[in-house]
Amino acid sequence: MSTVYLNGEFLPKEGAQVSVEDRGFLLSDGVYEVTPAYGGEFFLLRQHFSRLRSGLDSLRIDYDPEELVEVHRKLIDKNGLTESEVAIVYLQITRGVAERTHYFPPAGTAPTVYAFAKKFQRPSMECWLEGFEAVTVPDRRWSRADIKSISLLPNVLAAQAAVDAGVDDALLVKNGIALEGAQNNLFAVKGGVLVTHPATQEILHGITRSVMIEIAHSLGISVQERPIQVEELETIDELFFSGTTTEVRPTVRLDSKPVGSGEVGPVSKAIYRAFRKEIGQPIDQDL
Amino acid sequence: MSTVYLNGEFLPKEGAQVSVEDRGFLLSDGVYEVTPAYGGEFFLLRQHFSRLRSGLDSLRIDYDPEELVEVHRKLIDKNGLTESEVAIVYLQITRGVAERTHYFPPAGTAPTVYAFAKKFQRPSMECWLEGFEAVTVPDRRWSRADIKSISLLPNVLAAQAAVDAGVDDALLVKNGIALEGAQNNLFAVKGGVLVTHPATQEILHGITRSVMIEIAHSLGISVQERPIQVEELETIDELFFSGTTTEVRPTVRLDSKPVGSGEVGPVSKAIYRAFRKEIGQPIDQDL
Repeated sequence: MSTVYLNGEFLPKEGAQVSVEDRGFLLSDGVYEVTPAYGGEFFLLRQHFSRLRSGLDSLRIDYDPEELVEVHRKLIDKNGLTESEVAIVYLQITRGVAERTHYFPPAGTAPTVYAFAKKFQRPSMECWLEGFEAVTVPDRRWSRADIKSISLLPNVLAAQAAVDAGVDDALLVKNGIALEGAQNNLFAVKGGVLVTHPATQEILHGITRSVMIEIAHSLGISVQERPIQVEELETIDELFFSGTTTEVRPTVRLDSKPVGSGEVGPVSKAIYRAFRKEIGQPIDQDL
Repeated sequence: MSTVYLNGEFLPKEGAQVSVEDRGFLLSDGVYEVTPAYGGEFFLLRQHFSRLRSGLDSLRIDYDPEELVEVHRKLIDKNGLTESEVAIVYLQITRGVAERTHYFPPAGTAPTVYAFAKKFQRPSMECWLEGFEAVTVPDRRWSRADIKSISLLPNVLAAQAAVDAGVDDALLVKNGIALEGAQNNLFAVKGGVLVTHPATQEILHGITRSVMIEIAHSLGISVQERPIQVEELETIDELFFSGTTTEVRPTVRLDSKPVGSGEVGPVSKAIYRAFRKEIGQPIDQDL
């Protein structure tokens, strides 16, 4: 049975409950974070906490998450994930329990803190090398997609649109611009250059996105941060999504049409090889 | 102690809890409704249920809310609100409890149903006759504001912006258009004509909004459903918000400047008088 953390206590997930007056439940008034651990070791934990702090600041939730670093470690231990190839810790902080009002509750209302850990199963390397499929979906999100909030209904509907289409990812399009996935960032490769949307308020500032850019630099691949027109996707060479659990996921078919050659391209492979090295994981000889 | 309804049971609010895996808590994946009862009698209950069904359909949550009509009645009874001048029943339905995924959970996952009732205290007539104040706030919501979803973080931040400014309402502005309030619809009066934004996907289709339009017709007041430019607000005669708990709330100051004469106008008063009559409530002689 999985052990979760809730407001200072470790307890079985089955018994973990929050009040119906929690502002997370009533108003989606909170933020979350997902941090990966490879072989029990967190990867870029500081960066994840830094983004979390920034989200708490944006929403003016008065809470110092520092003590949760230790909670993250304990969740890995208590759930026997120290030997897991990949595990994640999910953390959510809401503005707490109070009589329902749209405006903030009285000062001093304690935030609700919930976290769980679980093993993450990557797709097999065979599957990865075949590539993945995506569909474009209208981006219906609010105008602060850079805040990792739990106000995720538009993302839910977009992710389901991908499932309905029988594909792996939803590519969100707004005003003719291919912004990012429903739960990951987007990269295109065109003439050897790696292109991704700038880190504006319209996309999530992915930690893995930053790693991708650093890796590209280290491999001598030019990076352009600029909007990508949807029409451009018809003439690009490679496309992939990046994210904490997505890692590097090459899209070989978009809206039922092949992307580039229709096969996983050399830049996607080179970047994923470098990423696997970065996270200290074995690199398959076929990659 | 207040009695609430949760998944088939009536219980004290203090003990009412939902799983941390509820998709309402994790993903704001649900809808809500607020229905008024005057002297224990529901007002336009059918219209509220009709909008609820439409929201459930839009989100593809498979649940027939018909049995909740009886739950509404019981909540009024059990909370001793049959004699209350104004009470409301709040109802929320989420996609239920399941392991966290963005896409929908397995078919057959039971929705979570939560409802509570409470007395609503109107501002005094003295206060009403002095009028209310509002500030304009950028509309940061998703592009389906017509769905009464619990994905309310942008509304929370807008409502708090009003509190921070020391005023009563937040007027949401998008692309130069004054759309509606953070939790109510908007009406302007200009040259004797009542103007309100059309019921597109950009605003909530308020039940009270429809009542306002019907009342205007019955009073021989012309109604125009068209976008209202922010600049137009400087030359209008009257402004008011409408909603289930808002009823008719006249704005006499917007962004610290007087609206029209800076006093509650005759059209707002006439419409509120007719509304009070419609809901069978006493009409103050000063109104």
